[in-house]
Amino acid sequence: MNQDDPKYHAWAARRKERLDSLKAELLLKKILEKDRVALANAITLIESNKPEHRKEANKLINLCIPHSGKSWRIGITGVPGVGKSTFIEAIGEILVKSGHRLAVMAIDPSSSVSGGSILGDKTRMEKLAPMDEVFIRPTASGKTLGGVAQHTRETVILCEAAGYDIIFIETVGVGQSETVVHSMVDFFLLLMLSGAGDELQGIKRGIMEMADGILITKADQGNESAALRAKRTYENALHLFQAKASGWVPKVAPISSINGKDLAIPMQWWENYFAQVIESGHLEAKRKHQDLRFFEESFQFQMAQFIAEDPHISNKYAALQQQISKGKTSSYEAANELLQLILHHGKL
Amino acid sequence: MNQDDPKYHAWAARRKERLDSLKAELLLKKILEKDRVALANAITLIESNKPEHRKEANKLINLCIPHSGKSWRIGITGVPGVGKSTFIEAIGEILVKSGHRLAVMAIDPSSSVSGGSILGDKTRMEKLAPMDEVFIRPTASGKTLGGVAQHTRETVILCEAAGYDIIFIETVGVGQSETVVHSMVDFFLLLMLSGAGDELQGIKRGIMEMADGILITKADQGNESAALRAKRTYENALHLFQAKASGWVPKVAPISSINGKDLAIPMQWWENYFAQVIESGHLEAKRKHQDLRFFEESFQFQMAQFIAEDPHISNKYAALQQQISKGKTSSYEAANELLQLILHHGKL
Repeated sequence: MNQDDPKYHAWAARRKERLDSLKAELLLKKILEKDRVALANAITLIESNKPEHRKEANKLINLCIPHSGKSWRIGITGVPGVGKSTFIEAIGEILVKSGHRLAVMAIDPSSSVSGGSILGDKTRMEKLAPMDEVFIRPTASGKTLGGVAQHTRETVILCEAAGYDIIFIETVGVGQSETVVHSMVDFFLLLMLSGAGDELQGIKRGIMEMADGILITKADQGNESAALRAKRTYENALHLFQAKASGWVPKVAPISSINGKDLAIPMQWWENYFAQVIESGHLEAKRKHQDLRFFEESFQFQMAQFIAEDPHISNKYAALQQQISKGKTSSYEAANELLQLILHHGKL
Repeated sequence: MNQDDPKYHAWAARRKERLDSLKAELLLKKILEKDRVALANAITLIESNKPEHRKEANKLINLCIPHSGKSWRIGITGVPGVGKSTFIEAIGEILVKSGHRLAVMAIDPSSSVSGGSILGDKTRMEKLAPMDEVFIRPTASGKTLGGVAQHTRETVILCEAAGYDIIFIETVGVGQSETVVHSMVDFFLLLMLSGAGDELQGIKRGIMEMADGILITKADQGNESAALRAKRTYENALHLFQAKASGWVPKVAPISSINGKDLAIPMQWWENYFAQVIESGHLEAKRKHQDLRFFEESFQFQMAQFIAEDPHISNKYAALQQQISKGKTSSYEAANELLQLILHHGKL
């Protein structure tokens, strides 16, 4: 919607009114009752930049934390065209039939440019979207990767409080967003195309090292032997990496999303993986570690926001960047000036 | 030296007295006169944690900046045993004979544990060390990687002001320190052993991608054909990476540090590389980019130092970590509390 359009202002006013009326305690009650509308509203509240909304959102998240943490958090990545949404649709149906409740969200670094979102732009997940047991949330658009990451972590907490026991976080295989997804999930699934050799080019170095499982998609319609060759290639590549702290040995399998038998493979991986890491205590340790790391990241993110929003400090920041570019001051000295400015902010 | 030893206190007192007497203007004058003792003292001043020393050090760095930037900054890495110091000794001699002045420093992530340093522990660089045209500085020990990185960047500025036109920054191939070195040099040289295939294991993923040149060392004494095979392997591997922003195509060559003819190869690479990136303007752009990134890193580093050194804030910080680990607060909320505490520091 165009911001010059009078309709935009009417919409924005209604949205603000709705968000203003949201109170943490009531939202918590409804979320625990698995109210999908309340959950969607709560996520919109989290995504709001208004300080009064943010305050209520923080309260809600802290109320939800005791009810969270019981899901399988699964990251899913792969280059565009690898068949991520087809896979999620197919396995989602099976998961729901087995009695699970599934939440699907996305981290899309391109959405801030396009203004759209992975899950929102295209009419996808047509079978899953109407299901009561499934909650699909497109990426918040117009945010930095840091902002999206923060909202996604908090959305996971809300979804878990709403009783979703499997969370998929999808992203496209272009680099930085994978690292972000990896830092917030328990199990990292990489989808790859067969056509061994070449496909190593499409995926950024380091991403394969993060994978707990690799599925070679579209292993059907005469593509089966290429998929098997790719399987061997990836298995060999995985051997080169250090053993995982979880003790889990990464798995590789060819898969056809139109073949239900194949879809049992990743489900088996997840059952084995979670049994193993819950038993060993690794899951708890990993999540604690992720939370502490997120604390650091959140702090840096909020500090950057503070700098950007304070006119005096952000002007000085830009001036310091200029001075560094012109070789008039050292980076260290400039950083020290910025720090002192922040520490004495409002005191002059 | 043991800190309980009375000799330690005498030494520390003499060191403080010496540092207290160092003034930026005089140091600058002596550094520009290529006074090696003054340069060494200036680096010690930079490494001091005392605020009064730091203040004088900042002044000195800002005075040196206009006289800096004219060197080739070359990063050299490779696993222990690959022959880094033998290579540096051999090529250093040739560089000095060709009229260059060489400064060698090291970033050693293990030194904070061992208390030693790459260049300091072993009696190495025996031929180079006494030369007037060579300045060798061991890693500062007992520092974090962030601290060492900061001091090394500043040491580069001082060495350039002292007329060293080639700077080597050495590190061991164990991961994070490479990324740090890569972020502060113009040309990144990777030393590898032959024995194709296996050696891919020894080096962390992502490091090969950073290389502007790969030398396969010890290509002598019957090892020549293995080195040639390794050359082909690495050339193939380099093809998989994206083209470099510099336009430079990474080179691979087998080399024997005991064969002067081989040593002409990396020298030719450097001459071609610097001619190309100076002509294209890439060098200037790259260094500006590095400086701005270092500004961000310095700021985070100094903020972390401030938090650690303020008893009230560091206690609160530890308490927030506890609350997060126990699931009593969200990482976002904790980060917000920490930010507010810093912004209102000293106002209560």
